[in-house]
Amino acid sequence: MYAIILAGGVGTRLWPRSRENRPKQFSDITGSGLTMIQDTAERLEGVVDGQDLFVVTGAAYAELTAEQLPQMPVSHIILEPSGRNTAPAIGLACLHLRRQNPEAVMAILPADHVMLNSDRFRVALRRAADVAQKGFIVTLGIEPTFAHTGYGYIKRSELLSTSGDLPAYRVERFLEKPNRAAAEQFLADGDYYWNGGIFVSRVDTMLSEFARQTPTLYACLEQIDGALDTAAAQETLEMVWPKMPSISIDYAVMEGAQKMAVVPLKAGWNDVGSWDALETVLEHDEQGNSIARGEVLLLDSRQNIVYSDKRLVALISVNNLVVVDTGDTLLIGDKSNMQRVKEVVEMLRAQGRTELL
Amino acid sequence: MYAIILAGGVGTRLWPRSRENRPKQFSDITGSGLTMIQDTAERLEGVVDGQDLFVVTGAAYAELTAEQLPQMPVSHIILEPSGRNTAPAIGLACLHLRRQNPEAVMAILPADHVMLNSDRFRVALRRAADVAQKGFIVTLGIEPTFAHTGYGYIKRSELLSTSGDLPAYRVERFLEKPNRAAAEQFLADGDYYWNGGIFVSRVDTMLSEFARQTPTLYACLEQIDGALDTAAAQETLEMVWPKMPSISIDYAVMEGAQKMAVVPLKAGWNDVGSWDALETVLEHDEQGNSIARGEVLLLDSRQNIVYSDKRLVALISVNNLVVVDTGDTLLIGDKSNMQRVKEVVEMLRAQGRTELL
Repeated sequence: MYAIILAGGVGTRLWPRSRENRPKQFSDITGSGLTMIQDTAERLEGVVDGQDLFVVTGAAYAELTAEQLPQMPVSHIILEPSGRNTAPAIGLACLHLRRQNPEAVMAILPADHVMLNSDRFRVALRRAADVAQKGFIVTLGIEPTFAHTGYGYIKRSELLSTSGDLPAYRVERFLEKPNRAAAEQFLADGDYYWNGGIFVSRVDTMLSEFARQTPTLYACLEQIDGALDTAAAQETLEMVWPKMPSISIDYAVMEGAQKMAVVPLKAGWNDVGSWDALETVLEHDEQGNSIARGEVLLLDSRQNIVYSDKRLVALISVNNLVVVDTGDTLLIGDKSNMQRVKEVVEMLRAQGRTELL
Repeated sequence: MYAIILAGGVGTRLWPRSRENRPKQFSDITGSGLTMIQDTAERLEGVVDGQDLFVVTGAAYAELTAEQLPQMPVSHIILEPSGRNTAPAIGLACLHLRRQNPEAVMAILPADHVMLNSDRFRVALRRAADVAQKGFIVTLGIEPTFAHTGYGYIKRSELLSTSGDLPAYRVERFLEKPNRAAAEQFLADGDYYWNGGIFVSRVDTMLSEFARQTPTLYACLEQIDGALDTAAAQETLEMVWPKMPSISIDYAVMEGAQKMAVVPLKAGWNDVGSWDALETVLEHDEQGNSIARGEVLLLDSRQNIVYSDKRLVALISVNNLVVVDTGDTLLIGDKSNMQRVKEVVEMLRAQGRTELL
């Protein structure tokens, strides 16, 4: 089994810990001692060998990727000339895998997600691989723990099979981010999963869906593929890449795939999409404070998330704060307003403070 | 006119900016570009020459004092063997001044107070010196701006004289820190001033009050004085010092002085006794935020006090916080609970974290 790890994002919402020159997937965000991409690779151990990992990322992160994943051949770092969403990135990786083995099963995973229970994840992944062998594209459906309005949802249809304790269902449909009422309905209904962007499929299944559903994109892929082992490979890639539609794999393939299955996953998944999202994967003290990293001295303070670097952080009578202390920047925000970190980044960009981005 | 600057305190309440190895008087707390003791000396310019400054402090701060006040002769740094409150410190300094000129007028000032209007301060000081020439001990009475319960008060009695626009009153009595109701009564009454610990007196007046009111302490002073220019000076000082009563100048002299006057002062005085006290001497933006130092980016945040060092501080939707960022420590607290910083210091002391004290 192969894995394609998607590591092209910038992770602005975790600024100032996630930076343009070192996005969150290349940082130890959770305090585990590993960076997120290292965590992602380690989580695959026993299912996917280091030799069979592929990473799609930007040229700026080639060196970080090679440094952080020494178990992976350097030739498996696939560089996208620019960020054009997930469909072109996955299509590009598929070209490389097809040359190795078109019938191989591959897992496609974001580099920057957290999974508290790796064992359950691996069991689900193996189960998904079995279903994928039969020509399905399989998504791991995250069992929702609350009525989240920030994720897409997957509605399951009939049971395909059960193996071990793990069922696989046919997918009825993919749903966009719902409003509050719809999200609550989904949660109550029980037939819905969060779309965590983790897919398992045979390489040929995926490419034939590209060909069938997005012929323009597929034609571009074929053009790139034609030059892949020639001297013109890079030139062709750079010429063709900007012509590809910048669309997500969900929109390009998943929503219209002929054989789409979902295997439920309950493994403490978290996309760590924002500072407050980090809270659910961190340990709490009795007052509900989460210390992601560093030494923190708390006095009459509750429900805070603190991410210190080297210095001691002392809190006196403060609640519901996010405190992120890096070498050059200190961010303090109200936990329920942390999505506004994007505005801070935009202000700094407008000021030309690129060294802080 | 001479000045005795009292610079022996440690300033725990302004931790982590005030540290045992560099208390607040040796730091630029207000962002003025000068340390507090430098501010204190500069404020005296035109009234007291650099040559006529004396500083009483601990041996640990002799070097800082000499560095920061190069205009003052090094021999004017008077070292107290240990902190024994203000009366012994002032008594010790008086011995040195008596040798220069017993009839000289001296101002006694804390090293760590802020005065926004130096001109008014100098006018009041000159006025106090005139009254002191007539044998009074004169205190500068800070005109209260609100019903503060953290200061001692001075109640004035009859008018002694007016010169320029500045009256001098006889003091009726000194009052301890009042409760809320009493403080409000004092404010409404108008005959009360805050005791800012700034005194002006002839050297001989002060010493004769010591002799009359605290003969034990005065006997110790005489013993020290007897050895002052001999080889046994230091040995005698160290032997006698621990025997002196550890009492304040208010208690030892002011409350019982025979001729005690008060000259009102309205000069933006602030003792900067705590982080929240700093707020009144800092400029505010339209949202009431005070930036003591550093670069701060504010988003939907009000009434905060921020003391940054080198790094950028970004605040998102937070109010009434005190943020103090030093090289090795970050303190974040609720503005109305900043007196608890002492507890943080005590916790660190109990943990043996002396490098952070």
